[in-house]
Amino acid sequence: MNAESIRKLFEQVRKGKLSPDEAVERLRHLPFEDLGFAKVDHHRALRAGMPEVVFGEGKSPAQMAQIFSRLAKHGGNILATRASEKQFAAVRRKLPKAEYRAPARAIVLQCDKKRYGKGTIAVISAGTSDIPAAEEAVITAEIMGNDVEHLYDVGVAGIHRLLANRGTLARARVVIVCAGMEGALPSVVGGLVGVPVIAVPTSVGYGAAFKGLAALLGMMNSCASNVSVVNIDNGFGAGYVAALINRL
Amino acid sequence: MNAESIRKLFEQVRKGKLSPDEAVERLRHLPFEDLGFAKVDHHRALRAGMPEVVFGEGKSPAQMAQIFSRLAKHGGNILATRASEKQFAAVRRKLPKAEYRAPARAIVLQCDKKRYGKGTIAVISAGTSDIPAAEEAVITAEIMGNDVEHLYDVGVAGIHRLLANRGTLARARVVIVCAGMEGALPSVVGGLVGVPVIAVPTSVGYGAAFKGLAALLGMMNSCASNVSVVNIDNGFGAGYVAALINRL
Amino acid sequence: MNAESIRKLFEQVRKGKLSPDEAVERLRHLPFEDLGFAKVDHHRALRAGMPEVVFGEGKSPAQMAQIFSRLAKHGGNILATRASEKQFAAVRRKLPKAEYRAPARAIVLQCDKKRYGKGTIAVISAGTSDIPAAEEAVITAEIMGNDVEHLYDVGVAGIHRLLANRGTLARARVVIVCAGMEGALPSVVGGLVGVPVIAVPTSVGYGAAFKGLAALLGMMNSCASNVSVVNIDNGFGAGYVAALINRL
Amino acid sequence: MNAESIRKLFEQVRKGKLSPDEAVERLRHLPFEDLGFAKVDHHRALRAGMPEVVFGEGKSPAQMAQIFSRLAKHGGNILATRASEKQFAAVRRKLPKAEYRAPARAIVLQCDKKRYGKGTIAVISAGTSDIPAAEEAVITAEIMGNDVEHLYDVGVAGIHRLLANRGTLARARVVIVCAGMEGALPSVVGGLVGVPVIAVPTSVGYGAAFKGLAALLGMMNSCASNVSVVNIDNGFGAGYVAALINRL
Amino acid sequence: MNAESIRKLFEQVRKGKLSPDEAVERLRHLPFEDLGFAKVDHHRALRAGMPEVVFGEGKSPAQMAQIFSRLAKHGGNILATRASEKQFAAVRRKLPKAEYRAPARAIVLQCDKKRYGKGTIAVISAGTSDIPAAEEAVITAEIMGNDVEHLYDVGVAGIHRLLANRGTLARARVVIVCAGMEGALPSVVGGLVGVPVIAVPTSVGYGAAFKGLAALLGMMNSCASNVSVVNIDNGFGAGYVAALINRL
Amino acid sequence: MNAESIRKLFEQVRKGKLSPDEAVERLRHLPFEDLGFAKVDHHRALRAGMPEVVFGEGKSPAQMAQIFSRLAKHGGNILATRASEKQFAAVRRKLPKAEYRAPARAIVLQCDKKRYGKGTIAVISAGTSDIPAAEEAVITAEIMGNDVEHLYDVGVAGIHRLLANRGTLARARVVIVCAGMEGALPSVVGGLVGVPVIAVPTSVGYGAAFKGLAALLGMMNSCASNVSVVNIDNGFGAGYVAALINRL
Amino acid sequence: MNAESIRKLFEQVRKGKLSPDEAVERLRHLPFEDLGFAKVDHHRALRAGMPEVVFGEGKSPAQMAQIFSRLAKHGGNILATRASEKQFAAVRRKLPKAEYRAPARAIVLQCDKKRYGKGTIAVISAGTSDIPAAEEAVITAEIMGNDVEHLYDVGVAGIHRLLANRGTLARARVVIVCAGMEGALPSVVGGLVGVPVIAVPTSVGYGAAFKGLAALLGMMNSCASNVSVVNIDNGFGAGYVAALINRL
Amino acid sequence: MNAESIRKLFEQVRKGKLSPDEAVERLRHLPFEDLGFAKVDHHRALRAGMPEVVFGEGKSPAQMAQIFSRLAKHGGNILATRASEKQFAAVRRKLPKAEYRAPARAIVLQCDKKRYGKGTIAVISAGTSDIPAAEEAVITAEIMGNDVEHLYDVGVAGIHRLLANRGTLARARVVIVCAGMEGALPSVVGGLVGVPVIAVPTSVGYGAAFKGLAALLGMMNSCASNVSVVNIDNGFGAGYVAALINRL
Repeated sequence: MNAESIRKLFEQVRKGKLSPDEAVERLRHLPFEDLGFAKVDHHRALRAGMPEVVFGEGKSPAQMAQIFSRLAKHGGNILATRASEKQFAAVRRKLPKAEYRAPARAIVLQCDKKRYGKGTIAVISAGTSDIPAAEEAVITAEIMGNDVEHLYDVGVAGIHRLLANRGTLARARVVIVCAGMEGALPSVVGGLVGVPVIAVPTSVGYGAAFKGLAALLGMMNSCASNVSVVNIDNGFGAGYVAALINRL
Repeated sequence: MNAESIRKLFEQVRKGKLSPDEAVERLRHLPFEDLGFAKVDHHRALRAGMPEVVFGEGKSPAQMAQIFSRLAKHGGNILATRASEKQFAAVRRKLPKAEYRAPARAIVLQCDKKRYGKGTIAVISAGTSDIPAAEEAVITAEIMGNDVEHLYDVGVAGIHRLLANRGTLARARVVIVCAGMEGALPSVVGGLVGVPVIAVPTSVGYGAAFKGLAALLGMMNSCASNVSVVNIDNGFGAGYVAALINRL
Repeated sequence: MNAESIRKLFEQVRKGKLSPDEAVERLRHLPFEDLGFAKVDHHRALRAGMPEVVFGEGKSPAQMAQIFSRLAKHGGNILATRASEKQFAAVRRKLPKAEYRAPARAIVLQCDKKRYGKGTIAVISAGTSDIPAAEEAVITAEIMGNDVEHLYDVGVAGIHRLLANRGTLARARVVIVCAGMEGALPSVVGGLVGVPVIAVPTSVGYGAAFKGLAALLGMMNSCASNVSVVNIDNGFGAGYVAALINRL
Repeated sequence: MNAESIRKLFEQVRKGKLSPDEAVERLRHLPFEDLGFAKVDHHRALRAGMPEVVFGEGKSPAQMAQIFSRLAKHGGNILATRASEKQFAAVRRKLPKAEYRAPARAIVLQCDKKRYGKGTIAVISAGTSDIPAAEEAVITAEIMGNDVEHLYDVGVAGIHRLLANRGTLARARVVIVCAGMEGALPSVVGGLVGVPVIAVPTSVGYGAAFKGLAALLGMMNSCASNVSVVNIDNGFGAGYVAALINRL
Repeated sequence: MNAESIRKLFEQVRKGKLSPDEAVERLRHLPFEDLGFAKVDHHRALRAGMPEVVFGEGKSPAQMAQIFSRLAKHGGNILATRASEKQFAAVRRKLPKAEYRAPARAIVLQCDKKRYGKGTIAVISAGTSDIPAAEEAVITAEIMGNDVEHLYDVGVAGIHRLLANRGTLARARVVIVCAGMEGALPSVVGGLVGVPVIAVPTSVGYGAAFKGLAALLGMMNSCASNVSVVNIDNGFGAGYVAALINRL
Repeated sequence: MNAESIRKLFEQVRKGKLSPDEAVERLRHLPFEDLGFAKVDHHRALRAGMPEVVFGEGKSPAQMAQIFSRLAKHGGNILATRASEKQFAAVRRKLPKAEYRAPARAIVLQCDKKRYGKGTIAVISAGTSDIPAAEEAVITAEIMGNDVEHLYDVGVAGIHRLLANRGTLARARVVIVCAGMEGALPSVVGGLVGVPVIAVPTSVGYGAAFKGLAALLGMMNSCASNVSVVNIDNGFGAGYVAALINRL
Repeated sequence: MNAESIRKLFEQVRKGKLSPDEAVERLRHLPFEDLGFAKVDHHRALRAGMPEVVFGEGKSPAQMAQIFSRLAKHGGNILATRASEKQFAAVRRKLPKAEYRAPARAIVLQCDKKRYGKGTIAVISAGTSDIPAAEEAVITAEIMGNDVEHLYDVGVAGIHRLLANRGTLARARVVIVCAGMEGALPSVVGGLVGVPVIAVPTSVGYGAAFKGLAALLGMMNSCASNVSVVNIDNGFGAGYVAALINRL
Repeated sequence: MNAESIRKLFEQVRKGKLSPDEAVERLRHLPFEDLGFAKVDHHRALRAGMPEVVFGEGKSPAQMAQIFSRLAKHGGNILATRASEKQFAAVRRKLPKAEYRAPARAIVLQCDKKRYGKGTIAVISAGTSDIPAAEEAVITAEIMGNDVEHLYDVGVAGIHRLLANRGTLARARVVIVCAGMEGALPSVVGGLVGVPVIAVPTSVGYGAAFKGLAALLGMMNSCASNVSVVNIDNGFGAGYVAALINRL
């Protein structure tokens, strides 16, 4: 489609209506997107199943509903993170198939239910307060077509609970670990598995936790070599990266 | 092997030399490792080709040579990061096949040259000063059995150089991006590809770069969803994670 | 006018009513402003069209209305930033010609509509959440007599949208770039244009964005040489500086 | 030149050797730069007189000399910042016309001596220790074809020295202010002039100066609306931005 | 109990129903906790009297009541910190013996009233605003079976009040010191006693207190060698550690 | 009075009821305060006129009224800072002579109206938003018996307003300067006067002002040698120190 | 001895040479220390075996030798931390019995070899680079009369090594844990034992480790309730506190 | 002298050579300093005895000697802080009466030995490592004509040493307190005296001392109302402020 204007240019040259030099000059003034290089997305297959994503915070219920309506026309999956129940109520009036995942504070509209992931993604949380971030990772990975297993409240001060559930770790192709406070869990998990670990520092804690900074710094300095880190409370990012890995 | 002592216990029970209760008691006092749960490394296949890694900083040449000698007996690949030429000289006297990769400041002894990675890993650097971190990522990925393509000095203030080399990005299954100063490159690269991007903030810059803090914070806040981050100047970690992903 | 008291002094000396020594002594005790050195504003022409500016935060509607009434007597343009609709309602009751620019949260009273700027100022925002800061820059530049073009939601993770609108960049004599999160956009824009770029870090983002600190640090370390930075969310400052530049 | 390959494509279409569809396909695979959109530098005139810039720190004298030799072939001006006398010695052996500006720690090779700036740039420093940053700004502005006046050691604790030299301020089209410690000078200067002020925080000071952080924060919060800020000790950036403004 | 499944395994081997090899294999797949190594709590005696602890913040009254009900079945003491009166009201409806300690913002249900501590724990606060943290330490130590003496509002700017009450210090086997603002009190107390001092920085103060950071840093740098530190406002942690020490 | 118990001891020794050794032993067990060393307040004269001070934040109106009632019995002046109108209403019901100083958010009960200060204290504020801190300094100095002159809204970006009022500066024995944002004013004032300057950073500003941190750091690094600094928004502390100086 | 002057006072009163009032007056002027309240060290028994401690950094070998000579006259144990071999050489010339503990960088002179500790202190280190801090803790605890067991290189990424050595943990009355980088080990150890854990953050690591800050913050936020923290690299403080606890 | 040019102006007006209007115009163009308003130093008496001050760091011995020579011509006292013995050697060759105060790292040339201070200034240091900052304060106060008493190594962990020397505190009109690490001493001293206390945080300490930041924050938050603070290690500033106070 956007190649159309270029094709027309060549047509005109072929028909002798434009000289090559005139064509070069016109080409130079075409809108960039028409050139088809807007996105280096050669891996087009990979893009199938990618959700449209909306950051809910600060949007009115009406705005949210309007965005969902517009995106829904493309037919793909839609995910709104940090979304409130009020926003959901507005969305549902327009799109009755939309669902609200309370623990993740997410609104989802899942049309494409194909499995794109090749294996299982494990999502681990250190404490119960880290569950919102973990659930955001879970729903993100799921809407991108992945099987997800979770393991919650397995913090490092009770390491046996983690070890007792090593089966879940053993099955995973990618592991997401959400932890606040000292953020130590990704290092321990990283030492137990041989697959990539994506660490999500959470803002859980008080005082010297400094709203997730302590956990973030801890994770950046993980002594386990297979750990990489996303932003504080960014369960969505972790789920997204894990989903990309699990498609490979 | 380490299950042997447990098997003996069962033998003794079978032979009636120990009652079940006595056996339970003895089991309780066996060294932990003998129980075989030391490592949840079910994915044993994945561990093949994993290098032994030595952090060079602060070690004397003699210590480095001694560590290499000991590790070399296991027959696997060995990688020393942040290693000096002096350390290398000492290693080479004991292990003539060891090599020094000056730009990466790495000593390598590569016995296992098998390809473990399924595709190509791209390593991108924003500036020429970021090359040491980038090269550390390259050598790490290579010694773990991967094909690596690199693309250096393609910072965001000259975005056309990056776009002009989009072929390298298009071929990669995983992309590593090293950048100091404002650390903006991973976001741009993340927007161009549909595969996981591992960002390495570097300590390149001065003043408000605060030795990599500015780049680290920038990368943590990337507006591209496929970016995760490792420690400042941690090219090794990025190469390691990329290699794990490329095996999947 | 304020030179009057000095002239009188000289008159008295001329008339012999004061000796030169007495005059020197009196001069020493004149109020400073009477000496006419209060402001080094030789570039008097430049000051034409400068708006009176009010920082709205923390002021009651009544206070705001009172300030507007008083300033309106001078006849120049008035701009209140960070102003609420309630403040506007109070102002409008006294000054019916005042307008409220909701996206910029600004109240304006524009009497002088002369064009002082010589060319176009481009205002770019990375995301939709950066629009309030961007709009504050727009209204500031406009009330100071400039033509402004804006380009919103062209963040670095979708670099093609920026490139597709390079016409706007090409036309600008000065460019303002507003971005939160990693604050990478000014570097990219700076690399695309040959004119001054004024970067506005915004408090958009969460977690390690630290309310604009990440963006601020990123922009301070821009690898593009034509970038200078103003305070977090300070769209007004950016618009003001751009307007001064555009008059030159 | 880089349009040549495109012109050839049109030629082939014109000659009937390629159908328009085939041409579109081939176009898609041409290197990006060939499309001529590498740089949005429509303002080509502005680029005349732009120096090539080299960051000296960390480069060996040999590397520096080699870079200068290579760049000198383009015939433009060359500026190396943070350069040592040893680096200069190596450069001069290859390029006898190169000069060393000791206070600015800069090597310059100025071939194009045309005046590009329309007026005067004033460079102010608060203390004598801020002079290196100030001189870096001076030499940058000069090599870009500007008349520069400087005013050193006019810190805010002796405000009269500044006021006594208001002539320099009055003449300037742009003002650069370098200050360490509390970084207060740009606010004072900003209040005295009606033109853009570019503030350079310097790492001068000790203790709670935190290597320029105190000055940087102070300048970001300037109560003068005409101040924008560059990185700590970034005299080059300030000179560059000022030169761009002075061309307008 | 959890050794039961293992004992059964041995039984089956003894009875010849399983070969030793089969038993080893089965053992490998038993849940980890069944192996009895979940907790290295050889010091079982020490665990007697340990309370169940609930962090109240962010829990609804209903959730809190439900947690208390469940924990109460174990028969031990229960402590909820950072609990509100509303949460308490809900708990009391289910467990009439529960009490609310307003100054500590704690709900307690104390079934086991045995003295486990060997001596007295002293709890000191610098100001009246530090009392909530201090009281949290008091109630924690008390519910763990300790005699506690407190001494409030004895800040360093009135050192005589502290010295006048040195009897309390003299009697203590462990001392807890809670202080905000400059956090100087633990150093003074540490110099006066020969027993361990546990310092609790509090978020009391304003401005450069940075919500307890100033106090925390001060305490980390205490010139008294017998001081160790817990998190900001973590009276619970201090009481817990003190109770463990007082049992020795 | 508190020496009474000691005198009794000597009496008993004199009467032979106690041996010297017994007396030494008893002395050792007397409460510390009885020894009369509680306060090294030799400068007793200086203490006359010292107010009782209450920090209002976080206290209920009832608590505030109760504290005032109790303190009022001592007959001295009472000052409550950070006090609300509601707190004042409660105080006034008990103490009709109490007054509320709205701009300073202070409740005062001034019984002793003697002048203790020898000269004038000048209180300067950079902007109108800094007035609450400045007024807190004013009322503190006044209640401690000082003549205070103030000069508001004389920030460094309009240095002429400050210079035009140099008379106030010239008359002062001590100067207090309150400024937020870049906190530059104390340096300028410090350079203009030869007396001690007490700087009060305020939390005025946004973004990189970081709630007064920028101003605090600026003031700590003042290039004027006669500046010392108190906590952010601590007008009370500045007034207190100034009053102590003005008594000397 | 220091009570002597007081006893004399009583003698003089008894003999009628001083009236009680005169005696009170004189008492008031006696040096404070003579009153015997210098130290609230009622727990005198606890002080036996306390070493004299010297901080070695920044002292010349001659100064160090002189300090040792002087302290040695008191007959107690002496410990110099952060001491160099050069300092030791100088000390040994004066005190041949002094020893140098290279891994701890400590000089010790141990005269009193009595056991004061009641049980064993365990010292754990996460990595080999944490050993200097750990060894400082070991030597401090030893010189204060304790049995110490250590367990090195048992970081959280290889949790099995720690679990395999749980015997050492099980035996300890107090545990010291030294860790740099993410500082996660104290939480894991804290969860495994029921005794006090003293955490020592170390400056081991690079980049976002920020010289121990990441580890310190992690440890302050430990999810294990039995953890308290000392300063970065402060092995001495940890050993000292542990020794005090072990005496109880 | 600088009034001369103005007097001439009046002369010319008196003689009719200039009209009043011409004179006003000329006045406007006179150098600012000629107007005699350069300095608001009405308190001229106070300025007597003010030393010329040189910051030594970064200056070559030759530069230092040259500066001293030049300043010596004015006849006042000269103080160089942060000066090395090498700098002193160069100064002494030119000015044999110059002296070096090693503990303060200061070069002094004291011509005016008059007493300007009315009472005694006390300088207190917490530890021996704080002595350089303390000595800098001492020499600054002395060269400005003050009697100084010092009291070193009286840190808060041994509060009795401070109390035992309360005589020194009692005698002082102003107190300077230098402390690193937790910076607690000013609060304790502030509570003991009724005069102004100037606190100097020092960079003494390690780890979480963060080069004086911990001490600085502690002192800013002092619970004693009579404390104000200068920059880290700024003994000079403290001595200067104290000297100004002591003149009042």
